[in-house]
Amino acid sequence: MKLFGTTIINEKGHLEIGGCCTMELVKKYQTPLYVMDEAHIRNQCRLFKESFISDKVDTEVIYASKAFLNLAMCKLINEEGLSLDVVSGGELYTALKAHFPVERIYFHGNNKTEEELHMAVKHDIGTIVLDNQYEAHLLSEICEKHHKHINVLLRVNPGIEAHTHEYISTTKNDSKFGESIFSEATFELIKWIDDHEFLNFRGLHSHIGSQIFERESFYRQLGIMMTYIKTVKQNVNVCIDELNLGGGFGIYYVDGDTPFDINIFLKELLEKVENDASGLNIPIPKILIEPGRAIVANSGTTLYKVGSTKKTYGGKHYVFVDGSMADHIRTALYDADYEAVLANRMNDEIEENYTVTGKCCESGDILVKTAKLPKPNPKDILAVFSTGAYHYSMSSNYNLMTRPAVIFVKDGSSRVVVKRETYTDLLRNNIE
Amino acid sequence: MKLFGTTIINEKGHLEIGGCCTMELVKKYQTPLYVMDEAHIRNQCRLFKESFISDKVDTEVIYASKAFLNLAMCKLINEEGLSLDVVSGGELYTALKAHFPVERIYFHGNNKTEEELHMAVKHDIGTIVLDNQYEAHLLSEICEKHHKHINVLLRVNPGIEAHTHEYISTTKNDSKFGESIFSEATFELIKWIDDHEFLNFRGLHSHIGSQIFERESFYRQLGIMMTYIKTVKQNVNVCIDELNLGGGFGIYYVDGDTPFDINIFLKELLEKVENDASGLNIPIPKILIEPGRAIVANSGTTLYKVGSTKKTYGGKHYVFVDGSMADHIRTALYDADYEAVLANRMNDEIEENYTVTGKCCESGDILVKTAKLPKPNPKDILAVFSTGAYHYSMSSNYNLMTRPAVIFVKDGSSRVVVKRETYTDLLRNNIE
Repeated sequence: MKLFGTTIINEKGHLEIGGCCTMELVKKYQTPLYVMDEAHIRNQCRLFKESFISDKVDTEVIYASKAFLNLAMCKLINEEGLSLDVVSGGELYTALKAHFPVERIYFHGNNKTEEELHMAVKHDIGTIVLDNQYEAHLLSEICEKHHKHINVLLRVNPGIEAHTHEYISTTKNDSKFGESIFSEATFELIKWIDDHEFLNFRGLHSHIGSQIFERESFYRQLGIMMTYIKTVKQNVNVCIDELNLGGGFGIYYVDGDTPFDINIFLKELLEKVENDASGLNIPIPKILIEPGRAIVANSGTTLYKVGSTKKTYGGKHYVFVDGSMADHIRTALYDADYEAVLANRMNDEIEENYTVTGKCCESGDILVKTAKLPKPNPKDILAVFSTGAYHYSMSSNYNLMTRPAVIFVKDGSSRVVVKRETYTDLLRNNIE
Repeated sequence: MKLFGTTIINEKGHLEIGGCCTMELVKKYQTPLYVMDEAHIRNQCRLFKESFISDKVDTEVIYASKAFLNLAMCKLINEEGLSLDVVSGGELYTALKAHFPVERIYFHGNNKTEEELHMAVKHDIGTIVLDNQYEAHLLSEICEKHHKHINVLLRVNPGIEAHTHEYISTTKNDSKFGESIFSEATFELIKWIDDHEFLNFRGLHSHIGSQIFERESFYRQLGIMMTYIKTVKQNVNVCIDELNLGGGFGIYYVDGDTPFDINIFLKELLEKVENDASGLNIPIPKILIEPGRAIVANSGTTLYKVGSTKKTYGGKHYVFVDGSMADHIRTALYDADYEAVLANRMNDEIEENYTVTGKCCESGDILVKTAKLPKPNPKDILAVFSTGAYHYSMSSNYNLMTRPAVIFVKDGSSRVVVKRETYTDLLRNNIE
């Protein structure tokens, strides 16, 4: 088990995050509760920004907001000086409402609608990451109509398969994302975009997957992309000024996960950029990266209230909590692993391996497959760690569960950034 | 491919549901859109109600509302004379707001909170389906405190494993649901409940899984439960008046799915109840069933607008639509199969197997693994069939996608029952 950021065990044997005792948080905000360690998020932002610097290579760190986004998070990301990657009109709307500087917004997605592209052009969004030829044409028409120029990157598929869960590896040759670097048509598309009056072609984007633990995968990606930059120059005489390498930097969820040192990795990556550029005899491109999970996952802890425990006739030990797969889908969806503790009994001896399950009427409603816990009692507080990414953002109202509140904690104080849903919220859009 | 209910191909070669051309629906309500065939839902309700009748056995059909619930659906279920199974405070709140008769509400769940039980007792809900001993004690305390009597069933686990997807089979010996019929403690619990002043013990509940195609599984369940009723009588001298057999009746999603005839099945089931009771020399219990998916799944069709198509370097054909796993999670979550068509080109020749994917920035964002389609063009309307159950109810705002509207269609007219979410809705609970 690992405690991240400001998370500690306090003198009462309680879990404390951001200087706030989780027992107090639960009293104040009830359960289930998404607790975000604000200092840790900021530290992760700074780790990326400060490690990703070199004298010779221009760099940019873009937060992949799909991991966790709301107005408060936009504000934080802006304060930390990161850029923002949005993937939908909804995410873009959120960034705009938070007054996030538009020039630092990157708009991603394999199937942006006309309305979304229109919205991006209208608001002078910094960069559109085009996925494909159809989208390039759609965007060009919108820009022509409104006589607006816009920066674009083209997402390409370098055909790398990183070692990770099938659902979140995105760059096999059969991925839905980007145009293949092996296709002749991609050269033509790059040339077409570069020649276009209203599209400012800035460069290429690729992303090879998520939750990757091998630095070597990223170095391979870099090598392939740098070579491709040269090939593009040779084939259609287009200079690539920017290379966006996406994200996918693996994080610790459970014992056995071995994330690499971000600082060492980013320094090595930039050295390789220099070396590759020199070896290939091409100008050094600006390098962009898009961490999402690596910024927020370990900053999040979900607090639940324990109901009962159950030992099945088959011998399995369950502990029931007042959340469910509606607020924690990754275990059911990706077979993901998590660590959990009893937040009010941090110093008690471990008794048994428990399966943490929620209130949903479904067998797949598993939150933590194996939690080593003291024997839980009703009303104990169970904390699941590393739930900062893809928990709040993937939450649903399945079984008409209301979504938990999200709070930020820092220096002994706490504040709600997303209010708990009420029963009234559930029916807000209903018409009888 | 199978068209259900009132779904037809009209003279223009367009898909028509409830007498409404889907092209008109899309024009009026935009996409993505959940379209529910109201007549077909009602017919399914009637099929269950009218088939589940016998001279000698008292019966009750309870709609498992977690499949699809909103105010309009509550009203429909009430009009059709079915009872309602709710699994959370949110579902109960919805039923109450829709003025669903409380005496016909069954409250399920493995971990009802004190607040939820309190809410149920306060509103004189018909029946609480208790999951375990802890819950029985919790409920008894609430009833004692308020001097309220309430009907209860006890959920038990008969140890049957039905042939279905691991995530949705619920009655293996290691299931989280119910108390085991193999445990001595369960007899004592039944006795305790039966003796309790405020708990009116009505009988037992069991549910063996979902999407089951073998009638034999249900007959085995019935046989085991009827024998258990006798054992309970012999062991602790408690009469079981009601036996709730749950749901799980398999439906057609794709070619190869072989649902049994509900009418024949239910008649056979009731005959077996009579025979078993006679063979065991026990009084015939009232039999309750809980169809959810079997009522609504085939009544639902999701309409999407096509963006572009993409043939990958690996040779895979994608068609991009304007929805995603946020409105359709079952393919990613359960590896579920669906059928899809181009609703505006129903008579066009099939060209290729396409993978239908959405707008989410994630490789797992697959809606239909294999759709046999004519070559899709941008702005074609793609319809995914049998999305009436566990689509709207499991939908999320992942990638900050807004949730689609839900409409009911019938006799050539259409009405919104759940309004489309807006960007404003997404931030309603945000605090900056």
